[in-house]
Amino acid sequence: MKREALGGVPGVIQPAPESFLEPDLIRDISEKGVNASRRNLLRAALATATATVAGRAIATSDPDIVNIPEWSKMLGNAVATNPYGLPSRYESNVIRRQSPGLTQTDQASVAFTPLQHMFGMITPSGLHFERHHQGWVDVDPRRHRLMINGLVATPLVFTLDELMRMPSVSRMHFLECGANTALEWGNSAVPTVQYTHGMLSCSEFTGVPLSLLLERAGFDRSRATVILAEGADGSSMTRTINIENALDDVIVAYGMNGEMLRPENGYPLRLVVPGVQGVSWVKWLRRIEVGDMPYAAKDEASHYVDLMPDGMTRQYTSIQEAKSVITNPSGGQKLLTHGFYNITGLAWSGRGHVTQVEVSTDGGRNWRPARLEGPVLPKALTRFNYDWVWDGSEALLQSRVTDSTGYVQPSMPALREVRGSRSIYHNNAIQTWRVLASGEVHNVQLG
Amino acid sequence: MKREALGGVPGVIQPAPESFLEPDLIRDISEKGVNASRRNLLRAALATATATVAGRAIATSDPDIVNIPEWSKMLGNAVATNPYGLPSRYESNVIRRQSPGLTQTDQASVAFTPLQHMFGMITPSGLHFERHHQGWVDVDPRRHRLMINGLVATPLVFTLDELMRMPSVSRMHFLECGANTALEWGNSAVPTVQYTHGMLSCSEFTGVPLSLLLERAGFDRSRATVILAEGADGSSMTRTINIENALDDVIVAYGMNGEMLRPENGYPLRLVVPGVQGVSWVKWLRRIEVGDMPYAAKDEASHYVDLMPDGMTRQYTSIQEAKSVITNPSGGQKLLTHGFYNITGLAWSGRGHVTQVEVSTDGGRNWRPARLEGPVLPKALTRFNYDWVWDGSEALLQSRVTDSTGYVQPSMPALREVRGSRSIYHNNAIQTWRVLASGEVHNVQLG
Repeated sequence: MKREALGGVPGVIQPAPESFLEPDLIRDISEKGVNASRRNLLRAALATATATVAGRAIATSDPDIVNIPEWSKMLGNAVATNPYGLPSRYESNVIRRQSPGLTQTDQASVAFTPLQHMFGMITPSGLHFERHHQGWVDVDPRRHRLMINGLVATPLVFTLDELMRMPSVSRMHFLECGANTALEWGNSAVPTVQYTHGMLSCSEFTGVPLSLLLERAGFDRSRATVILAEGADGSSMTRTINIENALDDVIVAYGMNGEMLRPENGYPLRLVVPGVQGVSWVKWLRRIEVGDMPYAAKDEASHYVDLMPDGMTRQYTSIQEAKSVITNPSGGQKLLTHGFYNITGLAWSGRGHVTQVEVSTDGGRNWRPARLEGPVLPKALTRFNYDWVWDGSEALLQSRVTDSTGYVQPSMPALREVRGSRSIYHNNAIQTWRVLASGEVHNVQLG
Repeated sequence: MKREALGGVPGVIQPAPESFLEPDLIRDISEKGVNASRRNLLRAALATATATVAGRAIATSDPDIVNIPEWSKMLGNAVATNPYGLPSRYESNVIRRQSPGLTQTDQASVAFTPLQHMFGMITPSGLHFERHHQGWVDVDPRRHRLMINGLVATPLVFTLDELMRMPSVSRMHFLECGANTALEWGNSAVPTVQYTHGMLSCSEFTGVPLSLLLERAGFDRSRATVILAEGADGSSMTRTINIENALDDVIVAYGMNGEMLRPENGYPLRLVVPGVQGVSWVKWLRRIEVGDMPYAAKDEASHYVDLMPDGMTRQYTSIQEAKSVITNPSGGQKLLTHGFYNITGLAWSGRGHVTQVEVSTDGGRNWRPARLEGPVLPKALTRFNYDWVWDGSEALLQSRVTDSTGYVQPSMPALREVRGSRSIYHNNAIQTWRVLASGEVHNVQLG
């Protein structure tokens, strides 16, 4: 079974699915349509493909077809057997995973989201990646407070009840750790997309616009240039955020994907800073201080900086630039038959919305547009799909996003020209997956 | 703490939040804006309200402010402590609940979603309502098959692997049981919104357009008028669906909210029939038969029919008409102080998208527009928010939706004029919550 076999563990393989699509099935299933030339290309590809027939005539020898399974003959489980539901027991391998040896402790560490098992744009909260600096805590919401101080007329303290009575907004946004894809700077051949790109999520967040709280406290409009956000966990994470962002689309959030935040994601309050790297989305948020200069906190002065080719470090580069990745097929999987595959992946931009995703199956020589699944929202993940017929020869799969500012995702060589290769953060280069003639898929870097 | 006290259990109360908003905080936080006359109305309301000051000056006597809590001094939990995450232990009352005595067995029964605890438009899969006819089963996906037969050139059988290689789409849609709000036909005074409207959800679904599978099997275009969808659980649920729907936006789904369907929701395959009542979204989907006349299955001939005033029953009325409900404040809650509240709720239509939601606080004499949270999608839930200052007098809270066809949600008396009062299904009337001077909120019916 594909879902089990694909696990986060590298090297396991996908049992044989059969090809199934006839040429006349390659049709427009998107709202925007697929143009005729592309359809004809695919028809041609299919005509030469070794695709076997799809679906199967009904075989009386298949025990799973002719025998009535036990679940069709039994009295099932009662409603509310699980008052809070969980995935099927057959999905037990679809979990967040810590990269062995990546960090020295398990509390200042990372657990990655299994992107190869994800669909659509929403990340299930149970699979949201984790990046903590001193472990996660389950804060008692009755005792939690949010303070607003600094350059304000009246320092204030809010309980959660008070915040939940205020005007609220709900918005879908991606969240990416600034260190996502960090090891690819070094050509490390990280085996799976879970480990290359799995510090990435997209959720619907609900909360109070930060601007309302700042106005309530009477912040000093003439002097304020930044805010400092501070967390209540043991690491006391602090981050500087420009006042322009703070007054724009930043949310003091208590809700995520329709329910309260999860403890690992900052329950009961976290800052949502759309388009900005995850470390600034301070979890267990307890304080907002209004200031007139950047705070140069530990995690912005010495960490989360970009080491440039000239030996200088770039600070406060918090926006996550446009990026995309193919999640299926991806590293660690194996294609066991030739024929049709749905290539699928995710695209996003911290500066706006996705306007186009192109896919190449030959390492960037030819590019063709993918279908975007709606809604395409600003600073949110966008799912793309692309019809592909694998003829059994070696292929190099890539995706490339263009965002609403016109910015095009760079190749790894192009990014290295500007950034060098000693960075940790902000790697948004095009990802390449090599499909061998054997069907095995590997992480490779070109050029 | 509000979240705990609000529970699904009727009668518990909300501990005292304080009012906090000054008149100058009533401002435009929506993208579309709030017009000036409305702002002035609210300023006037606030000026006469007994609202206390919001947020609090920092009090050195508050132990939760001056004492550093233990979670700020300790080493927290390791990443991937929970490889699949769960809500905070402080949210243990936010669960699906079975209505005591509503059904004779626990397998042919209902567990309701706690709408009073929900935010935004996405329903967390762990809180998705349950309605089973013979209990839920955890189907082995390796042994599960989908058959396409009937008026087709080639009957086919698909494995899950085969379906997951096909072109896929991802779309957000609401799902409402046809019997949602059933007891309100009888003026039953169901205590909470969990029990009045909790057979309602909205998720992002991923799967294969049914049209692709029908074309692959070569369905008979000249004779096909319907399909029959059949489930693999012990109830063998069967439902007739028009071929027009089947070829339009129906999806054979394996994904829900970014991961595989949950067992209670049909893992590994369910039919997604946007805009149509939940019973047609056949779970554990095992067969699609193409036919040339309605099948008059048990659950469409004798159940899920509408008993009309003339004694006849209306069959095949599957579309869920436009409907809305305020989820906060709602039945079983209590407002403990006067002042500002964010009235919030959900609106939807099986025929298109929501164009407007209006809120009344005086039982329908005056209506004012609510803010809609984006994205506003067809056949999906739309979250609305409305600023309200409670002056302590009795209030009658209502919401009313208009959809893209121009249809306006009816009052209960208007609906009864057409439908009588002996129906079970398809009650989309305006819901009224009465706020007493004591702050208690009750379910009532007007006129």
